[in-house]
Amino acid sequence: MKAIIITIGDEILIGQVIDTNSAWIAEKLNAEGIKVHKIVSISDDKNEILQTLELAKNQADLVLVTGGLGPTKDDITKQCFAEFFNTSLILDEKILKQVESYFTGRGDEMPKANLGQAMVLKGGIAMPNKNGTAPGMWYEENKTIFISMPGVPYEMKALMEEDFLPMIKSYFKTPFLYKRTILTQGIGESSLMELIEDWENSLASENIKLAYLPQPGMVRLRLSSSSGEKEEIQQKVNSKIEELKKIIPEFIWGGEKQTLEEVVGLELNHRNQTLSTAESCTGGYIAHLITSISGSSQYFFGSIVSYANEVKQNSLDVSPVAIKVHGAVSKQVVEQMAKGVKTKLNTDFSIATSGIAGPLGGTSEKPVGTVWIAVSGPKRTISEKFNFGNHRTRNIRKTALQALNMLRKEILIQNP
Amino acid sequence: MKAIIITIGDEILIGQVIDTNSAWIAEKLNAEGIKVHKIVSISDDKNEILQTLELAKNQADLVLVTGGLGPTKDDITKQCFAEFFNTSLILDEKILKQVESYFTGRGDEMPKANLGQAMVLKGGIAMPNKNGTAPGMWYEENKTIFISMPGVPYEMKALMEEDFLPMIKSYFKTPFLYKRTILTQGIGESSLMELIEDWENSLASENIKLAYLPQPGMVRLRLSSSSGEKEEIQQKVNSKIEELKKIIPEFIWGGEKQTLEEVVGLELNHRNQTLSTAESCTGGYIAHLITSISGSSQYFFGSIVSYANEVKQNSLDVSPVAIKVHGAVSKQVVEQMAKGVKTKLNTDFSIATSGIAGPLGGTSEKPVGTVWIAVSGPKRTISEKFNFGNHRTRNIRKTALQALNMLRKEILIQNP
Repeated sequence: MKAIIITIGDEILIGQVIDTNSAWIAEKLNAEGIKVHKIVSISDDKNEILQTLELAKNQADLVLVTGGLGPTKDDITKQCFAEFFNTSLILDEKILKQVESYFTGRGDEMPKANLGQAMVLKGGIAMPNKNGTAPGMWYEENKTIFISMPGVPYEMKALMEEDFLPMIKSYFKTPFLYKRTILTQGIGESSLMELIEDWENSLASENIKLAYLPQPGMVRLRLSSSSGEKEEIQQKVNSKIEELKKIIPEFIWGGEKQTLEEVVGLELNHRNQTLSTAESCTGGYIAHLITSISGSSQYFFGSIVSYANEVKQNSLDVSPVAIKVHGAVSKQVVEQMAKGVKTKLNTDFSIATSGIAGPLGGTSEKPVGTVWIAVSGPKRTISEKFNFGNHRTRNIRKTALQALNMLRKEILIQNP
Repeated sequence: MKAIIITIGDEILIGQVIDTNSAWIAEKLNAEGIKVHKIVSISDDKNEILQTLELAKNQADLVLVTGGLGPTKDDITKQCFAEFFNTSLILDEKILKQVESYFTGRGDEMPKANLGQAMVLKGGIAMPNKNGTAPGMWYEENKTIFISMPGVPYEMKALMEEDFLPMIKSYFKTPFLYKRTILTQGIGESSLMELIEDWENSLASENIKLAYLPQPGMVRLRLSSSSGEKEEIQQKVNSKIEELKKIIPEFIWGGEKQTLEEVVGLELNHRNQTLSTAESCTGGYIAHLITSISGSSQYFFGSIVSYANEVKQNSLDVSPVAIKVHGAVSKQVVEQMAKGVKTKLNTDFSIATSGIAGPLGGTSEKPVGTVWIAVSGPKRTISEKFNFGNHRTRNIRKTALQALNMLRKEILIQNP
């Protein structure tokens, strides 16, 4: 079962719009065990469209096309389909009614240009688009299924979820594919690979595929398998994950589409515990991540972003002597910051960061990228030193992820 | 001049990652007058890669490939290139040194798996990747240029901007294209279009093209022209921009690749003035934007992120009565927050935000998206109410941009 996704529209090829539709469709198909073989973006050009359809016909069982269905002259997908299938466009009364009601529902009359929206492929199946005027279309040719959908994401998604996905599942009697994602932090891709080499080698004999998906500050591991009975596949993938958890427990913090700020929020909420942050080098980024989660006001009280040393002293009660003797980027200062904000904002836990984000400001003793992170809780305050390299933005991101993972571990230790 | 962009990696085909690289590359190429003909995403599969390269060779003058260059087993782009060009991979000592120093700079030893990262195409040009371990590669075959880059966006972008774009421009002798970008904030695309309609209509006769590039919270306007002599083109585009500045002075805050946080930083630095923020609904995001600029410690002292009302009272001296009578999301409270942080952190200017970021927490009187923003300076404190809709992340972003632009204007007014 191979699928190809084709996106039609100049706006993607000039970089004005990022193609988010294809990833969404790919994820949905994947969850049904349909492998997306290729994603192609082409312009609203007749020859290009016909050539791409021809190639797709030979390579895939399922071809999903989005875009080029608007009422304006530059949208020609439907005409190209008709030519490609050697069929014609006919007026569909059911679709016409739906297009008219789309306008009357808004108190408007249907502009004449939209009459064409009700023209559909003869010999195909047209599905009304409840969020717009361009219908979806399903056409079968030599056992390959072609689906045409509008490019507007929410119109496409509704058509896909309500109509075409169920039709696809039933037509292709799709096999089962099981996949799980493991999220790690605090270790790079290569070191991780060395650490889990034996485990990785053991996957092949179980017909499990492994993919490394690195992002700044974290590596995601994706396991997938489709060979065997549904329950057997799930069981063998899950048991491999349990094995992995025993090999690298300190680096695994979550799974699937979770974020660290979400996981930390769940742990705090669950325990009715609260959090504050005192941020120097991260400059408010940790607070921003935490507050990007809806409902975070339940456990997050606030942050003191102490960029200037005076703010560290006046708002966080850091001792001027500690700053003078050890410097602002030091174990002493970062721990005082963590304790200071925890007391001032009256929370159970706190995070503090102090470092040289760069690209300027480094010394031989404390090069750019040197970062101290502290976590303070009801039972103890811990701190650790890192070097995250000399790229400012990534430095800030890596510090934040490291700090959130340290907090997560301390929550489990100090308040299990 | 036709270009094709190829993205290699299973993570895109299973929908786990949205392909943002291609849009970025397409925009850059377009700005140089190079038309992107097609964007293709395929998996880390040898036959697929070879077939796609073969097709691209026949259709394009320039083929840009991202992804599949990691040190792990599933990454095979380089091997496929070698086979396709009928050449071999050889160790590049210069690249090896750079890969080693990437690790030693972090105080690590280079994991053995990374030796392979220094193997490059014989007969091609390898460019070191200063942000990672996978080098970029340039290979010419029958007048078609193939470029291979890592898939990690910031590694790819640095290689593209610093090495490959200049090489592409010089190799293909791209025609002179003059383009300028005007940055606006505080007005939507449609309203802007109505406001500048006459001006826009006057561009055609000067052979100037205009593109609207909307982003959450701002609209970029790109003017470009390539017809005429270099100096003449520049002069006519620049004089049109001066005209535009007179039509919408309140919405234009910068140009080209500037960011609002950068512009605000320049204005403060220039005047030797300092800034602090008191953030409720933006949760530290404004402080994060400001501190993402290297050197911001010169003018930014810090922030008090007061998510809880207690923090507003205790750390910002907001009156409990004001919170009780007017609510936390009110003119009174946001102005007290701005004045409070300015005094506490001893800065010349301050920004304060208080709003309902959503998606929960709205009332009929104060629906989700209601935001109060205040700016306080040496001469006065101003505040304004907005509604930015019900999407949490966009809401936070729009609030931050609006606040920074309000600050920018107040700096010019209060301290010209």
